[in-house]
Parts: sequence; C-alpha cells; structure tokens
Amino acid sequence: MKNKNDAITSRDVDFAKWYTDVCKKAELMDYSSVKGFIIYRPYGYALWEMIQKELDKRFKETNHQNVYMPMLIPETLLKKEADHVKGFAPECAIVTKGGLDDLEENLIIRPTSETLFCEHYAKIVKSYRDLPKLYNQWCSVVRWEKTTRPFLRGSEFLWQEGHTVHATEEEAREETIKMLNIYKDTCKELMALPMVTGLKTDKEKFAGAEETYTIEALMHDGKVLQSGTSHYFGQGFAKAFDMKFLDKDNKEKYVYQTSWGASTRLIGAIIMVHGDDNGLVLPPRMAPIQVEIIPIKMENEEVMKKANEINELLKKNNVRSEIDFTDKTPGFKFNEAEVRGIPLRIEFGPKDLENNQIIIAKRNDYTKQIISLDSKIEEVVTNLLDQIQEEMYNKALEHLNQNIFETNNYSELKEILNTKGGFVKVPWCKELECEMKIKEDIGATSRCITNENTKDKCICCGKPSKVDVYFAKSY
Amino acid sequence: MKNKNDAITSRDVDFAKWYTDVCKKAELMDYSSVKGFIIYRPYGYALWEMIQKELDKRFKETNHQNVYMPMLIPETLLKKEADHVKGFAPECAIVTKGGLDDLEENLIIRPTSETLFCEHYAKIVKSYRDLPKLYNQWCSVVRWEKTTRPFLRGSEFLWQEGHTVHATEEEAREETIKMLNIYKDTCKELMALPMVTGLKTDKEKFAGAEETYTIEALMHDGKVLQSGTSHYFGQGFAKAFDMKFLDKDNKEKYVYQTSWGASTRLIGAIIMVHGDDNGLVLPPRMAPIQVEIIPIKMENEEVMKKANEINELLKKNNVRSEIDFTDKTPGFKFNEAEVRGIPLRIEFGPKDLENNQIIIAKRNDYTKQIISLDSKIEEVVTNLLDQIQEEMYNKALEHLNQNIFETNNYSELKEILNTKGGFVKVPWCKELECEMKIKEDIGATSRCITNENTKDKCICCGKPSKVDVYFAKSY
Repeated sequence: MKNKNDAITSRDVDFAKWYTDVCKKAELMDYSSVKGFIIYRPYGYALWEMIQKELDKRFKETNHQNVYMPMLIPETLLKKEADHVKGFAPECAIVTKGGLDDLEENLIIRPTSETLFCEHYAKIVKSYRDLPKLYNQWCSVVRWEKTTRPFLRGSEFLWQEGHTVHATEEEAREETIKMLNIYKDTCKELMALPMVTGLKTDKEKFAGAEETYTIEALMHDGKVLQSGTSHYFGQGFAKAFDMKFLDKDNKEKYVYQTSWGASTRLIGAIIMVHGDDNGLVLPPRMAPIQVEIIPIKMENEEVMKKANEINELLKKNNVRSEIDFTDKTPGFKFNEAEVRGIPLRIEFGPKDLENNQIIIAKRNDYTKQIISLDSKIEEVVTNLLDQIQEEMYNKALEHLNQNIFETNNYSELKEILNTKGGFVKVPWCKELECEMKIKEDIGATSRCITNENTKDKCICCGKPSKVDVYFAKSY
Repeated sequence: MKNKNDAITSRDVDFAKWYTDVCKKAELMDYSSVKGFIIYRPYGYALWEMIQKELDKRFKETNHQNVYMPMLIPETLLKKEADHVKGFAPECAIVTKGGLDDLEENLIIRPTSETLFCEHYAKIVKSYRDLPKLYNQWCSVVRWEKTTRPFLRGSEFLWQEGHTVHATEEEAREETIKMLNIYKDTCKELMALPMVTGLKTDKEKFAGAEETYTIEALMHDGKVLQSGTSHYFGQGFAKAFDMKFLDKDNKEKYVYQTSWGASTRLIGAIIMVHGDDNGLVLPPRMAPIQVEIIPIKMENEEVMKKANEINELLKKNNVRSEIDFTDKTPGFKFNEAEVRGIPLRIEFGPKDLENNQIIIAKRNDYTKQIISLDSKIEEVVTNLLDQIQEEMYNKALEHLNQNIFETNNYSELKEILNTKGGFVKVPWCKELECEMKIKEDIGATSRCITNENTKDKCICCGKPSKVDVYFAKSY
C-alpha cells in the first residue's frame, strides 16, 4: 500500500506528525486561540457521540443515573481530601473574578468532580435505604497542561465521570470491576480496541484512591495509552467529607465509594491503533458514516438513480450510508473517503451498470470486489461491515500479542523498550525507588500489575519480587 | 383538589415558594456551595435529556452538525464585536490563573460562544462551496447573576447554542425562522407548552444581533418566561471577525449569520405552566417515567406477579413504566408519584385481582378509572397518555388565550398587569423612552412585537404608533 495522500506524513517517517496530520486532514479537530484547548469539529465530535451513546446505554442498563454538577469548585472544598488536592492543585485553572468584582473565595474549574459529588452525597444520603447512589456525569474538565496533543492530552477535554457510594466494601469493589469491564467490552465491541487491564501501582494511581484499575491500549508505534480508569476509594473521601449513613443494624457507618472515567482520549486510541498512511481507519460500529457512495459521472441519470436507490436501501437496513454529491472528481472523493476512514466505498459508473454490477472497496485492507446488481446488496454490505469489524479487532489483537514481552533481565528490558516498545512484564519488589529508577533510566512507566505474589527477583534491585508489572513507554 | 402535601406551599399562598418547593421535593435539583450554581439531580437531568434528545433529533434532521468549542475565551476575542462585549462583560467569570501561574491574558468562561464560532468560521470558510455551515453545541455557560432561581436564572446553566453562516441574507433569515419554529413546535409537541412568538425590540434583543425572535410562555401566576431565542446577525460579526468567502461570481463577500439557543429554563416553564399544589405535572411525552405501578400488599405473590406482567407488557409497547418496589406505604408512594408528576399511576391489591380489575389514576385531573383485566391494558394506557398530552396542551392554551389582553389606554395597561398579569398588546411609537417608562412605572417589559405598521397612538406618549407590542411582567 503506498501513501496516496501527500498531505499526510508517513507513519514510519514521523509518527507524531502523522498523528496530527490525520487529526487535521480528517477534520476531526482544529486549534483554538487558547493553547491546549481544541475545537471538536463535526466529524471528531460525531466520533465522541458514538462513544457516548454506547457507554451511556451500558451505564443506564446497569442502573446508573446521569446528573450534572457545577463547573466551579470552591478552593476550600477541593482541599478537603489531602492526597486529592496534592494531585490536582498544580493543574488548576482558577477563577478570581466574577461579574466585575474580585471573588471572596477563588473558584476552581473542575479538574474532576469527586469533591462535588462527596459534598452532595453527604447531604442526601442518610440511611441504607438511600444506597447505593450510582451517578454519572458527561461534561468537560480543565487541567492546565504544559505539553498538549489533540485528544491525548489537553487543557480541556470531554469525558464522563461516574461517582458511586455503597453500603458495603464488597459492593463498591464489585462496582469498580464492573465499570472496568464495561470500558473494556465497549472498547472491544464498538471500537475494535483490545486492552491490557490491571491494577495501577501506588505511584500511578488516582489522587485519593485506594486502588486504580486501568485499561491500556498499544498504539501502532509501540507506545501505550491509558484509555480509562476505575477507582476504588474505600472510605477515604467518606471520612474527609463525613459521608455517613444509618445502616440496617442501626449503626452509623461511612459509605464505600468508587469513581471511573473515560474521555475523548479514546478517539486518540482509535486513530493510533487503526489508522494508516492514508488516514483514519474506522471500525464500522464506530463509524458515523459506514458507506460512502461515489457515483462516477453524476450527470448520468441512470447512475444517480441507482446511487439513490442503493443509499435508500442501505439506510432502510440501518446502514449509515451517504452519497458524495459534491462537484469534486471521483479520485478526489475516493481520497477523501479514505482520509476519513469510511469502512466501505461503493463506486460505479455507466459502464458498471451496463455490466449489471457495482464495486465495493474495503477501507481496512484496500481490497475491492465486484458485486452483481442481482445480489442482495444490503446483505453483502452488512456482512462486509461485520467482517471488517472482526478483522480490525483481530489485527489489533495480533499486534498487541506480538508486543507483550516478558523478562527478568534489566538490560533486556531496556533493549526491548528502546527498540520495539510494547508491554514488558517484569518482576518487581513494589518499592517506589525501583519504579522511579526505570522511569528515569528508560523513560518507561509501570502501566499495571498483572500478577500478584510472584517468586522471582526484582528486575531493578534484585531483592525478592512481590508482583509482576507491565512497563511501557506511554503517551 | 386539596393540597395533600404539606411540604409544598400552595401556589396561591406564595407562588415563588411553591416553585422552589416543587424543585426540591420532586428532587429535580439541589443547591451547591457556590451561589447560583445548582446540582441537576437525576430526575431533573432526565427532563433535560428528554428535551435534548428531541431537539437534537430535529437539529440533525435539518442538517445541523454538533461540535464542541473551548470553554474559555480570550478577553481580546470577546471584545472584537462592540455591542456583544458591552452586553456580556458585566456577567463574566474570569480565569486569571492557570497551573499555579498568573495568565498573560485573562480568559473568560464562555457566557455564549459567538466569538469562538466566528474565529473558527473565519478560518475554515473560504468559498461558497463551504457554505452553509450549520453547527450546534451542547454545553454549559456561565453568566454571573446577582439574583438566581433554579432553572430560571443561574450563574451556570445548560443549553444548546446553534451558530450558522450562510452565503445569502435570504438563507440566513430563513434559518432564523426555521429554528424559531423548531423551538415552538418542540415546546408544543413534547412539552405541551403553547408559545407567543415575535420579534424583540431593540432594547431587548441579543447583544450584537440585528434581530432577535423569541418564544414566550405564560406561567400560572401570570408572569411570562422567555423560553428560547433565534437571532439574525446580518453581517455585523462577519465584518468584526473578517468572515469572508469567494462567491460563485468570483467576488469576496461577508457571510450572513444566525445563532439560536434554548436552555434548562424550559424545565422551569414546564414546572410553572403545568404544576399544581401537589407538585410537578409532566406531559406524557416529556415524562422520564410515564406509568408508576404501585402494588398494594407487595407480600402477595399474585399481586407481584401481575405487577411484573403489566410492567413488562407496557415496556414492550414502548411505555416508560416502572414498579415502586420500595418498602414505603402505598399512600406514601401515591404521594411521591404525584410530587414527581408521573402521568399515570396503576394501583391494585388482592381484592382488585379477585374482581379481575386494576385502577388507573390520571395525574393531570386526578380522575381514576377501573379497568378490567380482560381489556388490552397497553392500549388503554397509550390512549390515556395521548389524551393527557392533549388535555395538558389545551389547558395551557386556554390559560394563555384567556390572558392575552389588548388596550390603548395606559391606566388599563397598568391595571391589567398589576392584577391579572398576562400579555397585554399595546400600540407603541418604538421609542426607547416609552419602553423604559413602562418598565420603571409598571415593572413590565416588552416581550415581542406582534404587529408591524399599526395606525394608532403610542400608549405611552400619544404620538403615532408604529407597531403593536406585547408587554408583560416576566421572570
């Protein structure tokens, strides 16, 4: 496959440049005049809407309810839980003036909303009858970042944040894992993204959490991307915010709490896992447009009639199909459909119709097939879309599996991460010092713990290891 | 109908207190620790989701696309259009610090996003081929308000803002009216809210607009509520932001522009138009829960079996139905379903089943009917829901029609507005002075122009009138 689109840098030449080229050329985003704040253009926002719709459906099926909390948090409220404020204070955007006056107390634009949910829950949860509370909110958050990249790291990003409180530890732990699995399944089934999952180390966990579970995806360039997290808080926030309830046994107890979030980062994962040198490649279930119909010779009445006929037929069969009616050349249109990663392209001109056929081209592997007009086109198309979805997941899974390594030799760890990338499983003593040393020396961070209770030697210090952990270079 | 709920103040005793009682008791919202910023609780947010879903569907059917613009606007950008900044500057929340540092330039939390859309359009619109651009965004905005009330006026509120640019004046004017009508139709068909529509006076129009069209609803207490606006901008912003395109005739021209918005205020309108002394009354199409099934004697197996059976049957027929499984008394459950405005309540106990019947109670008029279990319950329910929707609209329309008055006598205007409220149509010279005088003297504002080219005398100064205009006291 050669690069037909000069405007997009080849992945092998400069992966970072390829990435931003795709973001811009597929018209997913644009830069605004405030550094780190991007504009989600219609096609990029449509990707987010697809993710939202599927996650929201799954949240509601599991009895979660949407709410909306204020955008601004009083400084004192953010400071109530010590670890939490330590983690977020350096990234805060601060409102000091409102309505021409200086404010009495500074207000922080939410970097995350744990503190607001805690304050609200403390107020409305009185009895075991009020539990569990399973709330979620869709919003944008602001975290002041020095280096930013579209979808991957921005000073503002769109996300959902779930916040739940429970009567028992067991139920809260169950919720943490349940939501992790919803993320993992949605990534697989909607986005064709295989994930490595596990527990974060103490250093990498969320500010204020007892435990953080993560889903991590492997990008085409061998670096990994944290794509969603689910936190078990125990009673830490509950004690800081006095979130108590009267239990069935008539005793006052603190609630157990979780939170979990996924963001527009997932769009970055889709681009970097599936994309190729000609642009975006979208998994069919995720694609806002699944089929682009490109009639050759639009002035031909028969051609346009057939294009409309096929478009209507596909729509009736719940295929997201459209005709490119613009006055560009067919070659230009093919190219555009490729840049935008549309899974299937249907093309035909007067000669094809004479031969009673149309051509269907697959975006993911560039194969084309000639389809007789006597066949059931809607079935051919829906089967092909299913097939592409599966092929894309399998290809991504193969790439992931080929890039999961294991070693207990430090120089081999360094060698793998500096040449191939991927995930490397190593034995570790659980000491921060060793984790930090690997970060400073190799530029890799621990991604997640994959195996408890190992009996080896720590890859770094040689003392007895406690767990196996994945190290990787990451976004 | 007597007030069964002591926790809710009667409308006739104190309408303002009734309103906040309903907001709180129906668990639509709660106050946060920042003044003017409310928490949208699950039931309140579910109302917003119903409105969102319907409007979003209609926007997409008319070829609008969703985007997302940054939350923060550089101060210089907001100042580019003179009228616009004058209108919004006094209400701005200002970010002066980010990531521990003082910012070089202050950033404003969007009070509305015209300036951001203009900057983006100036960048991406080059040719007539790029037009029209029909964008919309769902987000929250911040306007620092001194006096705030849940859903009606808040320092932060949820809304959608549409922003479009067109090649011709005609097309932009058409868009302005098209969106006004989408608001009006959605209010009628979804929310059972009749609206008075028309053009705002220069004093009341949007900061930077050439013309503002409005939909205005009459509340139960005789005050009116602006419920959505659609603005025609002409080329004002286009010139300030240099939004030019190369037209078919190869000439550079400025675009014509519109914007339009509707917000969570609509929830306030639903409460104040339809609600009664026992709480919320929801139009069925708008109700997150349409039928509450309340089994009497939950320990009875036959009763619970029937409850589940009816619930499943209704759900299968696309009725949003649920069973109240909580361990409260039936009386308490009836009361709760009333406060929450659930259109239909189905109740039955062992004795009803012996008599082969259930009871269905309508929320809007408190009538009850006995339904044989041999009848098609799903049909009875869907027919009743349709009937309630119609009854509620007709009742609101009747109230509106009974409270539209007309006079050309100043003391009568004052008398009507100070006793009955409602809309009063009066002849007006179009001078700001007269408009201001009525505001200061009676506390009423012009709501919209209803008739151009009248030949009467201005109700205020006696000079020849130019238009008829509605005056009203408003929220």
